Amino acid sequence: MLPQWIIEKKRDGAELDSVEISDFIRGYTQGDIPDYQMSALAMAIYFKGMTPRETADLTLAMMHSGKVIDPASIPGIKVDKHSTGGIGDKISIPLAPLVAACGATVPMISGRGLGITGGTLDKLESIPGYRVGLSEPEFFQTLEKVGCSMIGQTAEIAPADKKLYALRDVTATVPSIPLIVSSIMSKKMAEGIDALVLDVKCGSGAFMKSIKDARLLAQGLVDTGRAMGKKVTALITDMHQPLGRTVGNALEIQESLDILNGKGPADSQGLTIELAQRMLALAGIQITNHDSRLTDGSAMKKFKQMVKCHGGDLSAGLPTAGKQTPLPAPKSGFISKCDAEAIGRASLLLGAGRAKTTDLIDHAVGISNLRKIGERIEKGEPLCIIHSNGRENDLSPQRSCFQTLETAFQISEQPVEAPPLIIEVIQ
Amino acid sequence: MLPQWIIEKKRDGAELDSVEISDFIRGYTQGDIPDYQMSALAMAIYFKGMTPRETADLTLAMMHSGKVIDPASIPGIKVDKHSTGGIGDKISIPLAPLVAACGATVPMISGRGLGITGGTLDKLESIPGYRVGLSEPEFFQTLEKVGCSMIGQTAEIAPADKKLYALRDVTATVPSIPLIVSSIMSKKMAEGIDALVLDVKCGSGAFMKSIKDARLLAQGLVDTGRAMGKKVTALITDMHQPLGRTVGNALEIQESLDILNGKGPADSQGLTIELAQRMLALAGIQITNHDSRLTDGSAMKKFKQMVKCHGGDLSAGLPTAGKQTPLPAPKSGFISKCDAEAIGRASLLLGAGRAKTTDLIDHAVGISNLRKIGERIEKGEPLCIIHSNGRENDLSPQRSCFQTLETAFQISEQPVEAPPLIIEVIQ
Repeated sequence: MLPQWIIEKKRDGAELDSVEISDFIRGYTQGDIPDYQMSALAMAIYFKGMTPRETADLTLAMMHSGKVIDPASIPGIKVDKHSTGGIGDKISIPLAPLVAACGATVPMISGRGLGITGGTLDKLESIPGYRVGLSEPEFFQTLEKVGCSMIGQTAEIAPADKKLYALRDVTATVPSIPLIVSSIMSKKMAEGIDALVLDVKCGSGAFMKSIKDARLLAQGLVDTGRAMGKKVTALITDMHQPLGRTVGNALEIQESLDILNGKGPADSQGLTIELAQRMLALAGIQITNHDSRLTDGSAMKKFKQMVKCHGGDLSAGLPTAGKQTPLPAPKSGFISKCDAEAIGRASLLLGAGRAKTTDLIDHAVGISNLRKIGERIEKGEPLCIIHSNGRENDLSPQRSCFQTLETAFQISEQPVEAPPLIIEVIQ
Repeated sequence: MLPQWIIEKKRDGAELDSVEISDFIRGYTQGDIPDYQMSALAMAIYFKGMTPRETADLTLAMMHSGKVIDPASIPGIKVDKHSTGGIGDKISIPLAPLVAACGATVPMISGRGLGITGGTLDKLESIPGYRVGLSEPEFFQTLEKVGCSMIGQTAEIAPADKKLYALRDVTATVPSIPLIVSSIMSKKMAEGIDALVLDVKCGSGAFMKSIKDARLLAQGLVDTGRAMGKKVTALITDMHQPLGRTVGNALEIQESLDILNGKGPADSQGLTIELAQRMLALAGIQITNHDSRLTDGSAMKKFKQMVKCHGGDLSAGLPTAGKQTPLPAPKSGFISKCDAEAIGRASLLLGAGRAKTTDLIDHAVGISNLRKIGERIEKGEPLCIIHSNGRENDLSPQRSCFQTLETAFQISEQPVEAPPLIIEVIQ
């Protein structure tokens, strides 16, 4: 079947069969099907969607475009978590060691930040010496020794996704549920895991702005994972305000260390515990008081072991920014808005993130001591602290960061209820 | 504005402005915008359409991607005809000399056949020596001396269309009204004409199968021509059965000569006269009995002069096929079906057309003496005559041609009315 006939079939709203999907993806990966046919198909999928069966087939085809880790090569019950990305979302970092401390294995392949969304790899790289690019034997050894390892995507994992993702980015075909689902799941399923917990972020600081879209994505992820024979749970969690009290790479590592010491902010610490429980449940590991591993030092021990295996040195300290500037509250009252999107943009302006993939980032800068919705604040108290670096005479990024942050907060005279963090669970 | 933002805007159903359209087409023509962005935009246009204003802007942008003939460089009032293509449609060949004999100038740029649809250039090339690739000075000289010239598209005319057409063909984005309209009109408007008559074919042997689609295309063509300041009329004509009594290149030239001698079949001769009248009316040329130019020899004289200017030699005779085989009627009665699509496919099987652009064609083969809907036939009389060439031992193409033709005809015991040829006129 010619590629244009497959495009035409999808354009006309018909269901593609498994062979059509796998042939197309194989042809695309090998370079026999050019980008211009793939982008036309992606646009047709954008408009006509895919059935759960088609999405599962697309995921399988993309997964098999590269190396699939043999589950037998990793010891234990393997479980992972994936977040669709938000502001201040550092949960993976304390979560993986906590779950490992409870007896499961967490072979986590993470990503970098782009736009206002930070990336786990960038955060980990603020630890001096931490290498995200372990070889496969090193990755397996770390998993065997520690129980968790957090690495970057290798060229061997789902190359079709790498190619297609770059193409979607420049052809206005990113926001399509079947394309997002297959991109996420093809990589996760290639890790050789038994179970997966998904954290679908919803709100101003997330890709999915509405609960309706978040639900569609969550359901698509769960359906596809199940169709591939895995245990999957999805949580829809709030991303109208950032998670925790820090945004920025080294600052988020510091908060992760606080969580691993049992002293993190209520929301980020709570979500870590909640996600760990879901992962352990899927893994079939019976354990009471799993959260005690955050206070008894065992999760922290796993984290330190993992960092060491990755060549990192926590004793060297984390990078700090040259200047800390508090943002004073203009009046007393209750925080009624703490906008994730604006805070993400401010952090990007400081240099904590990338506008494009080739940009360099500053691990030290960011925002800390964030006050959250529902909290009481007095006039002049800091809404947050801005950590900045920069040339002596160029204050413009900092100035526009200030302006952006001023719009991020609102203070109400009436008490405000904090919004629930976990909006929905799709089992 | 980044190309992906323009794609996104169209994807979301918004109207693109003139600068966005011209920038995109300029970028695409120059190679700054890659095929994969153009194909994604084409698919978005397929789904979301374009307003008349957008279609006119797209046509203008494609026209200005290459050379635009200065109307002042061609004498007289310049008028042309374009057909969307059908089976047995040789009308351009007698029409251009007839209109020239009435005093208008016809600078016609024609195309080649693809699939079941024949092309004027292929038909003309069955005249020994006829060159469709005149230089620009030769083209102008022929127009000045004769009043009509029929050439092929040059590389200089609308290169954006050439590139986009090839891309649409392999990305399932051919059947989109704004893309079809801009493709046709960008080339026609680059000819430097004052007026244009469009013959939109409708039926089994045409691209537009339904009257609804044909009407949309005709209206799109008229709107776009007017928006560009030209006088335009569109006719919707029947293509459920072939036009005239011949299909095939040399055979259609022979029928064209018959028309120029005033002795053509009623339908093809009648349509030639009708289209000539429409062209002359648009050109503002007052003439009574314009059809007498077919019987007084003046149109034939123009044709012979044109062929000579193109290096052709009519005295050398037209190529003929090795074998003529009649297809006998299985019973007596009235022809109730003479299916254009099946007859086109049979002609393609004989070698008269191209399955792909690189195929070679046989100018001599085809089908003649076609009996048409409504005509009385007696059992055993030929429904048509098949003109074939072929290796002595390979009869399979001829056999499958026979089988195809048998399904093309139906004979009814009751009298059948011939369908009207001209279905609608959009002024």
